[in-house]
Amino acid sequence: MRVMGIDPGIAIVGFGFIDKNGSKLTPVQYGCIQTEAHTPDEDRLLHVYEGTVQLIEKYQPDTVAFEKLFFNRNVTNAMSVSQARGVMILAAKQKGLPIAEYTPMQVKQAVVGYGKAEKRQVQEMIRMFLNLQKIPKPDDVADALAVAVCHAHSYVLNSKINEVLKK
Amino acid sequence: MRVMGIDPGIAIVGFGFIDKNGSKLTPVQYGCIQTEAHTPDEDRLLHVYEGTVQLIEKYQPDTVAFEKLFFNRNVTNAMSVSQARGVMILAAKQKGLPIAEYTPMQVKQAVVGYGKAEKRQVQEMIRMFLNLQKIPKPDDVADALAVAVCHAHSYVLNSKINEVLKK
Repeated sequence: MRVMGIDPGIAIVGFGFIDKNGSKLTPVQYGCIQTEAHTPDEDRLLHVYEGTVQLIEKYQPDTVAFEKLFFNRNVTNAMSVSQARGVMILAAKQKGLPIAEYTPMQVKQAVVGYGKAEKRQVQEMIRMFLNLQKIPKPDDVADALAVAVCHAHSYVLNSKINEVLKK
Repeated sequence: MRVMGIDPGIAIVGFGFIDKNGSKLTPVQYGCIQTEAHTPDEDRLLHVYEGTVQLIEKYQPDTVAFEKLFFNRNVTNAMSVSQARGVMILAAKQKGLPIAEYTPMQVKQAVVGYGKAEKRQVQEMIRMFLNLQKIPKPDDVADALAVAVCHAHSYVLNSKINEVLKK
């Protein structure tokens, strides 16, 4: 199963594709979509949308997981990021992909086992899980991989629960 | 010139098309796109996006004006509406239409001449400007028409300023 993880943004969108075979996780590709500051919202939204569509077409994920926006004291920024999130969810939906959402706390819980883990701990676990030499930069990319890993783990957990329930 | 006005939402999106010939404003069509409560975000976003695309294709506006979200104490709702706003801005941009945005205060100022006018005053002015027998319902539709009227007025004002500057 291939999972695409997304850390939404309007300036930087982090993305990460990972393959899950049994309990083994393998990184496929990761990076970010960037938009130019001081350009109109509509141009940036189109760029984010088209970038997402291209990535989905190129790497053919089976499912897409988004980081849920946490309450943001900067409401203007939260609204701007939400607009970008909207066009990415649309792109995934148009491709017929199942969509999942996780709060930062759920991601930390799934990756480190502790919902209040520090960012650095999450990043180090991601590096280990995916056998990477270095923690991917910027943080948005590491965050996107963390959401993907969280989603892959949840799948494992859900399928184990289903197995138990079937017995 | 034909203006499309939009009052963004995730449950109800108000829209209104008006024609401006000289200083005369004529309503073309107005109404709302509605999405079902308790359905996944992605389904609602796709519905809003496809509805917007269909309206643009059917009524062929020259420009689209959006009401800007005002700071909302309900941040979860503001983020949800922003996601819908994002897909509508994307739809307009994909059709190559110029996009404008107005705050509720700018709309009131343009329609009533007073930025703190009451909702009822704005609606009554819209009814008069557009020669409607009744105030359109729900409020979202009247709000969308108000944004369209505001945008049409701003165009008149801007072109007058340009004329003066050219002399």
